[in-house]
Amino acid sequence: MSENTTGEAPADGATAAEGAGAPAAPSSPTFPTGPHRASLNTATVKHATLAEACEAAAAAGFGAVGPWRDRVQEVGAAEAAKIIADAGLVASSLCRGGFLTARDDAGIAAALDENKRAFEEAATIGAPELIFVVGGLPAMSAPGAGPRPDAEPADRDLVATRARVADRLADLAPIAREHGVRIVLEPLHPIFAADRAVISTLGQALDLAAPFAPEEVGVVVDTYHVWWDPALREQVARAGRERRIASYQVCDWILPLAPEPLNSRGHVGDGYIDFATVSRWVRDAGYTGFVETEIFNEEIWAAPPAETAATVLSRYEQYVAPHLTGAPHPGR
Amino acid sequence: MSENTTGEAPADGATAAEGAGAPAAPSSPTFPTGPHRASLNTATVKHATLAEACEAAAAAGFGAVGPWRDRVQEVGAAEAAKIIADAGLVASSLCRGGFLTARDDAGIAAALDENKRAFEEAATIGAPELIFVVGGLPAMSAPGAGPRPDAEPADRDLVATRARVADRLADLAPIAREHGVRIVLEPLHPIFAADRAVISTLGQALDLAAPFAPEEVGVVVDTYHVWWDPALREQVARAGRERRIASYQVCDWILPLAPEPLNSRGHVGDGYIDFATVSRWVRDAGYTGFVETEIFNEEIWAAPPAETAATVLSRYEQYVAPHLTGAPHPGR
Repeated sequence: MSENTTGEAPADGATAAEGAGAPAAPSSPTFPTGPHRASLNTATVKHATLAEACEAAAAAGFGAVGPWRDRVQEVGAAEAAKIIADAGLVASSLCRGGFLTARDDAGIAAALDENKRAFEEAATIGAPELIFVVGGLPAMSAPGAGPRPDAEPADRDLVATRARVADRLADLAPIAREHGVRIVLEPLHPIFAADRAVISTLGQALDLAAPFAPEEVGVVVDTYHVWWDPALREQVARAGRERRIASYQVCDWILPLAPEPLNSRGHVGDGYIDFATVSRWVRDAGYTGFVETEIFNEEIWAAPPAETAATVLSRYEQYVAPHLTGAPHPGR
Repeated sequence: MSENTTGEAPADGATAAEGAGAPAAPSSPTFPTGPHRASLNTATVKHATLAEACEAAAAAGFGAVGPWRDRVQEVGAAEAAKIIADAGLVASSLCRGGFLTARDDAGIAAALDENKRAFEEAATIGAPELIFVVGGLPAMSAPGAGPRPDAEPADRDLVATRARVADRLADLAPIAREHGVRIVLEPLHPIFAADRAVISTLGQALDLAAPFAPEEVGVVVDTYHVWWDPALREQVARAGRERRIASYQVCDWILPLAPEPLNSRGHVGDGYIDFATVSRWVRDAGYTGFVETEIFNEEIWAAPPAETAATVLSRYEQYVAPHLTGAPHPGR
């Protein structure tokens, strides 16, 4: 387990953060930036092994990778930790735990077991944060598909499903804490509310996190999922005040949607998102941690990992990094 | 212009609403329901003329139709009014005005002119409400397509775009009032935030409506667009208190999405939405008006209008109507 339990990137010669999980004071004159704050999520180079992804990330100049569990499991968590360290990188997070919406006892028990395994993997690779995608409605037959013909009214009950997520977080938070890992709730775009995640806004994620300490449950700000939210500025600021921003993830909303909408994400700058504004909000909330690029896109997956890593870092430096540095913006 | 300026359906022998725009008091022991509260939006039978749509709606037992402007314009508004009345129906709303997000003077002037024409049409056909879809980011090249290559940063500025919507509403509200027509803001699902409507939640629509009288600017609660919203119960109740619910529209969220995501809507009951819960919230908010079914779906469009009208009414009676009647639900 890394000492870096807050997901904060090493500062450019700045003094250390005042305390675990504490954001930089909003009055700080500057915030560190630079390529070492950039993290490459392994899903962006989906077909690369962990070693290949780390090699591409290190060569491009990234400071971190955000591995998925499949790439960790295929080498084992201890070996994964070595691969990441040998590349001169750290793990900014581990994707992903969650899937907490089952109604039946067996489904609930299976979710708890699976998340315990994920906490162990995160701790072993030194990832301070385990990203949680909480799952869709029990009515779902499969992600991207229609409801089960035998679904009962309770399987479409979104209010009750969201309440179950709160119950499972109460079960899991103490276990996460034992492992020294923070549960990080990821609100997903409402396009995925039925089949992938019933957490749909940053505000809702913060409400679900509220009963727990900031070191136990944090949130992700992923531009793809939250860019459209009229309450985004207010909720990003709240997330900073409540010391819960565990990760800032970036990729763009592109149109037309891909035939599999999950894979409709674009390189930063290719779509509709105003990264300057959102990045300033994240900066002004005091976030000084890694900026992870996670893109699901068949065309990008077909490109050589080194090429993708270079493009991702170049887009980060063009569209995101300039707005993470400097004094907090006086206006919006 | 009908006297029915609130969009309320005629009550089943109940006394008339207490005043223009006033919802039934939440303490009313019962709310009227029945097929006459159902309205068929003409987009649900896209290939039918207005006369064909009205014939199908009347034969099935609907009390109203919700015409689109194309179907009104092809016969002229005066003739459209006659067609609707001769079928024994009323117009529950007119779709659609809006498209208020232009940055340039010519675009702004064109939007004001076009909406004036729409107010005239609504008044002529006796539609008390003109549904507004406010438009997407100026960066958009076309609905469903990517950004213009020459888009400037301001064309992706969602905050400024939303502020322009507020400015245009201030221009248009007095004109709508002169025509005896209410502007009705429709929040669209966030999947459409880039290219179709920058109003993404019911709460945001209510915030935009707040500077105006309830008789001037209302909101639509469309299940397809808002079902996922963690704040939905609270915002529906607020919409009732603020006397702004102008229309309750229903159709289902189905998966997989259609190749053109706009046309991914399903018959009520075929997808993931919990109509019982949302309908009770709408009832408890005091809404006693029409329930309009608006479905965009290539397969449904290919069916005979009479068949579609019968299915829509049957689904309304199975999944929606039972939850609109009776005493307000004591629980959620």
